[in-house]
Amino acid sequence: MRKIGVAILGLGVVGGGTYRVLTQHRAFYQRTQNLDITVESVLETNPERIRKLGIPEEIVAANVAEAVLNPDVNVVVECIGGTEAAREFVLAALHAGKTVVTSNKELFCKHSHELELAAKTHNAGLYFEASCVGGVPIIRTLLDGVQANEISCLMGIINGTTNYILTQMTERGIGYEEALREARELGYAEADPTADVEGFDAAYKLSILSSLAFHTKVPFSKVFREGITNVSQEDIADGNALGYRLKLLAIGKNTDAGVEVRVHPTFVRKDHPLASVEGSFNAVFLTGDSVGDIMLYGRGAGELPTASAIVSDIIFSATHGEHRYSTFKNTKTPDKDTKFAEDFLSAYYLRLTVDDEPGVLAKIAAVLGKYGISIVELIQRSKCEGKATLVLATHETHERSVMSAIQKLDGTGFARVESVLRVAF
Amino acid sequence: MRKIGVAILGLGVVGGGTYRVLTQHRAFYQRTQNLDITVESVLETNPERIRKLGIPEEIVAANVAEAVLNPDVNVVVECIGGTEAAREFVLAALHAGKTVVTSNKELFCKHSHELELAAKTHNAGLYFEASCVGGVPIIRTLLDGVQANEISCLMGIINGTTNYILTQMTERGIGYEEALREARELGYAEADPTADVEGFDAAYKLSILSSLAFHTKVPFSKVFREGITNVSQEDIADGNALGYRLKLLAIGKNTDAGVEVRVHPTFVRKDHPLASVEGSFNAVFLTGDSVGDIMLYGRGAGELPTASAIVSDIIFSATHGEHRYSTFKNTKTPDKDTKFAEDFLSAYYLRLTVDDEPGVLAKIAAVLGKYGISIVELIQRSKCEGKATLVLATHETHERSVMSAIQKLDGTGFARVESVLRVAF
Repeated sequence: MRKIGVAILGLGVVGGGTYRVLTQHRAFYQRTQNLDITVESVLETNPERIRKLGIPEEIVAANVAEAVLNPDVNVVVECIGGTEAAREFVLAALHAGKTVVTSNKELFCKHSHELELAAKTHNAGLYFEASCVGGVPIIRTLLDGVQANEISCLMGIINGTTNYILTQMTERGIGYEEALREARELGYAEADPTADVEGFDAAYKLSILSSLAFHTKVPFSKVFREGITNVSQEDIADGNALGYRLKLLAIGKNTDAGVEVRVHPTFVRKDHPLASVEGSFNAVFLTGDSVGDIMLYGRGAGELPTASAIVSDIIFSATHGEHRYSTFKNTKTPDKDTKFAEDFLSAYYLRLTVDDEPGVLAKIAAVLGKYGISIVELIQRSKCEGKATLVLATHETHERSVMSAIQKLDGTGFARVESVLRVAF
Repeated sequence: MRKIGVAILGLGVVGGGTYRVLTQHRAFYQRTQNLDITVESVLETNPERIRKLGIPEEIVAANVAEAVLNPDVNVVVECIGGTEAAREFVLAALHAGKTVVTSNKELFCKHSHELELAAKTHNAGLYFEASCVGGVPIIRTLLDGVQANEISCLMGIINGTTNYILTQMTERGIGYEEALREARELGYAEADPTADVEGFDAAYKLSILSSLAFHTKVPFSKVFREGITNVSQEDIADGNALGYRLKLLAIGKNTDAGVEVRVHPTFVRKDHPLASVEGSFNAVFLTGDSVGDIMLYGRGAGELPTASAIVSDIIFSATHGEHRYSTFKNTKTPDKDTKFAEDFLSAYYLRLTVDDEPGVLAKIAAVLGKYGISIVELIQRSKCEGKATLVLATHETHERSVMSAIQKLDGTGFARVESVLRVAF
């Protein structure tokens, strides 16, 4: 039976979960994988965490060198987060020829090229399934499950915090602030929720997933990003009336116009498989030229689901040793042939306040028509003081046209665009 | 760049799709996988198929030996089907040390041990992603995506023909025969639909998936199997009124009572992710001890989705050469420690014709109660001639208790059980 020694750097939620999964399943992996996986070293400055996990004193490392250079350690699991210490420690492990398994999406998104180069140079493995969508094996699927396909589109609900918040706003009619407070209390949102609610977390993941799906580096800087902090209860309700559910979608497309990547609140039709992905669940919907549409669904975060991805990577690295690089095309910059779309196509939802008088609707339709925008569906509500609310959904059109039309409408005096949201199919 | 030569045995729907995917993506695989994959040989007795695919005469083999012993062939794709010629040809390829990729669920279900032994003996690869759920990478996921988990439950809609038929019966209110006729016209059902509608196809797949999920051989003979030929429009409508959708589910569980595997029409609650898997789509819902619930969704059959799985296996075999056996635990017989459950727990749906007179309901409840069966929900409808229809859903209970209770009820004279269907949670 092969022995695999593991060092875990950082015993927060994910690192602690990894420790628990490994120690509780030791006999199971011996039996099912013919591997004896043991935790040989941990690095953690908070003694409370070590105590709570019941970790024996003798495997607590005094510093990173002691952990990663331990001759009994084959695999180093990085669960520190951030891009400072984590980057330094991962590089140290790779330089020592150790296989690295990381859950750190920001690190991998920003430094994959440097890490990959170090891995290749030192003949070390590098695995990162846990960086995206928790326990859902989306990276394994992209690399080793649907790699026969040219992927044209990837749409994902890949941030649990925002999906929890939007689900609560939708199902219970509460406002953003109240839903965020609840998410904090339940541990779904951090004290500073910026990374989640402003879409950074989803954008890091989208950068990684798109790079793999489209076989070219898709830098974080190319991701169009809009968070959910301005989402109003009114829009959710009006969208609902039009048959939509609001989700923070990460969308990656590879079309003739180029690669486009964007994270923004998006209405999806209620009968779309993504519409029923609720609460802290995540899902990724992919379209390949042979496989057609497929979707993977599961918990995108949390102690044990993320640990499942980390430990599955540890096992994969031990059982498939020959192929050690997961992102052979994940260079620092995009391939020279890669074109990024400067505009994109989407359908739109608009909510306007308009003068409540005859002929206004025709005038609005005329402005939109001038920009090539046609209306699919429309709801009008009377407001007080001579104003009405108009909610409309458009056919697919260019983002730029919509932005120009909005500017034009806002300048007319008879209409003001209160909100604009994109609609996916 | 590494060269991979492929032989395709059988150019029916799946073999033809594989030929098309490989030839159309040659440059794509060169660019993205650093592999030059070419079809070096095909074996097919129907000249029309060869002509339609535009296959050059010189790669058409005269016999199986010419195809599999061709020195330019590294990978043999078996798309013949059945267990006679296919078994012989696959063994010939493995004996020659060639990697075999197969879509043949019946062959793999019945002969995996023999094939695996031949593969090991001759240092040949053996891959079978395409045998289950078309292009959905469920086998890769079980082996290399969630292998850190002890899987307790697997529930799948893994036969497209029956899901198409049940979806049409549900959505359009048509009968089984009409839906089957349509499925035939659309190419979703074969002239002899037995393998699909009687659940054999799903049972082969469930045997394979359960063996992998539970790390012990789960023989086909252990699969409890009931098809959809007796499903009535009345049950679908009554189930709908209770909030259920009817699906042919393949269920595998590994509990303290042992392993249980069964394929039967099953009601699922409308809010379960499996309920909205419609038409020819398939999905597998898994529960692991760390990852929790995950679901994979996509097209379970068809030319290109199945070819996607085959070609992804070809690429995997070329890029992960060291680990050549996918089913190291898939022995001929179950592990000696494996226990199979003799009974199982389920909730139930019962439709009864009863005497339409006071006190009958109490008497029925009393009979059920005697067998430990409690009722969750009940609908009563009046029928003519002094009879009423009673539709009821039960709490979870033992299959054996339900069967005994039904026998008892049928013997009372005041009630006749018209249909019994299981309900999953």
